[in-house]
Amino acid sequence: MTESTSPALDVALAYHHAWTGHDLDKAMTYIADDIVCDAPAGRLEGAAAYRDFMGPFVQILTGSELVAAFGDDQQAVIMYDTETVPVKSAPGAECVTVKDGKITRSLFIFDRAPFDAARKAQASAAT
Amino acid sequence: MTESTSPALDVALAYHHAWTGHDLDKAMTYIADDIVCDAPAGRLEGAAAYRDFMGPFVQILTGSELVAAFGDDQQAVIMYDTETVPVKSAPGAECVTVKDGKITRSLFIFDRAPFDAARKAQASAAT
Repeated sequence: MTESTSPALDVALAYHHAWTGHDLDKAMTYIADDIVCDAPAGRLEGAAAYRDFMGPFVQILTGSELVAAFGDDQQAVIMYDTETVPVKSAPGAECVTVKDGKITRSLFIFDRAPFDAARKAQASAAT
Repeated sequence: MTESTSPALDVALAYHHAWTGHDLDKAMTYIADDIVCDAPAGRLEGAAAYRDFMGPFVQILTGSELVAAFGDDQQAVIMYDTETVPVKSAPGAECVTVKDGKITRSLFIFDRAPFDAARKAQASAAT
């Protein structure tokens, strides 16, 4: 795993370590009130929408491993694998822009397909 | 967009510019014969399997935009958005390990859900 240091990366990693440590309150201290995040399901605007997006994921998170982390003054990229209750390996990538110690922009990439499949399997098992 | 320079990033970007320019033959010159790539659908082993994975994607690619690119001596991360025939915005992230000028390991992340949805829509339109 590679970790260099940069102002943006410091914030991205602090945020990452907080949410992967199940401390969503602390993670949200690094998220700007007016964050704009392009996530797989669409654009999220504002910290409340962002928290609603991350909250359920943090609840099903059982493990994580950082794969790569790079950044410069304003931008950072982190890639990681996560282990969740429904999906055993769910890697993700985030590209964040940081201003004044907070994440103002985020491009959030992960594959929704295995989560969709797990939901369908659960739904059919319930009927 | 951020671009720093590093030996691994130089290779990652040359590979990226080749395939986003529809030159899969040139892109493959940066792929090691024994590449191991963890892609959304599972692990790909060897250059032939990797080409079979990228080929159909390059054929439906209509545009791309680099979002971020970072690297060090051995590892690079690139994030980008792509425009494809079935999906208008399909962002992707790749974390690659480079040895002797070739990509030997890759973690490839994108969301399969919109491609699955487009396939289903096309299948139901055809019936």
